Amino acid sequence: MYDPNNVFAKILRGELPCFKVYEDDQTFAFMDIMPQADGHLLVLPKEAAAEIFELSEPAAQAAMRTTQRLARAVRAAFQPDGLFIGQFNGPAAGQTVPHVHFHVIPRAEGQPLRRHANEKQDPAVLKAHAERVIAALAELA
Amino acid sequence: MYDPNNVFAKILRGELPCFKVYEDDQTFAFMDIMPQADGHLLVLPKEAAAEIFELSEPAAQAAMRTTQRLARAVRAAFQPDGLFIGQFNGPAAGQTVPHVHFHVIPRAEGQPLRRHANEKQDPAVLKAHAERVIAALAELA
Repeated sequence: MYDPNNVFAKILRGELPCFKVYEDDQTFAFMDIMPQADGHLLVLPKEAAAEIFELSEPAAQAAMRTTQRLARAVRAAFQPDGLFIGQFNGPAAGQTVPHVHFHVIPRAEGQPLRRHANEKQDPAVLKAHAERVIAALAELA
Repeated sequence: MYDPNNVFAKILRGELPCFKVYEDDQTFAFMDIMPQADGHLLVLPKEAAAEIFELSEPAAQAAMRTTQRLARAVRAAFQPDGLFIGQFNGPAAGQTVPHVHFHVIPRAEGQPLRRHANEKQDPAVLKAHAERVIAALAELA
């Protein structure tokens, strides 16, 4: 069921690069490479699970803890009008990588999201955004 | 900050009706009255918090536990192609009631969601859907 060669599994193993903003024993977070808004990041449980249905309760709890922490950091760093948290299961729901992940996406009043998984952001911009989130996390800790 | 007279606070206090599917000490779940897809339900922490930022960690953990449980039940009851979990903070992110809630929404391949908070569903249909979720929860327990 779980494909150990999905892109996020490779990121978790350090086989692909990413702009990491947070890591602990059970979770990992990094900037979405095709952000739907500035500051869009992803929170992953490290546990090998494709969808929320298979995820263990401890892994789900850890993912929630990190997602809430990152939501606060993104809010502090980008001061958006609103913030969306989304977790998609299956391609029909918009999931593009088969490892459970939570989207944390700043929202601006009257401004639609850019399309999901559409266009790669400039790495220099992603790096700068990651640094803002990391600084905000340190402030909140 | 928190408005104790928001619609969900009234539902939690039993001052407004709903099609309840689940309740425990810390959480409450019921069918969305304007579902974006058949089976669309909402999971609420009982704690008085408008957005995820203010929610206590124990309340967030409880909400995650119930959301995962309900996601499994909705999947069993409606067998959708995919399942979306969404948590909106602020009107700019699509939040229409200022009490933290998690949307659990079945997704069908190639079928867009109905518009959010748009049209009330027939109560008889909501009741039948609630019964399917409750039956699935009992099966999974």
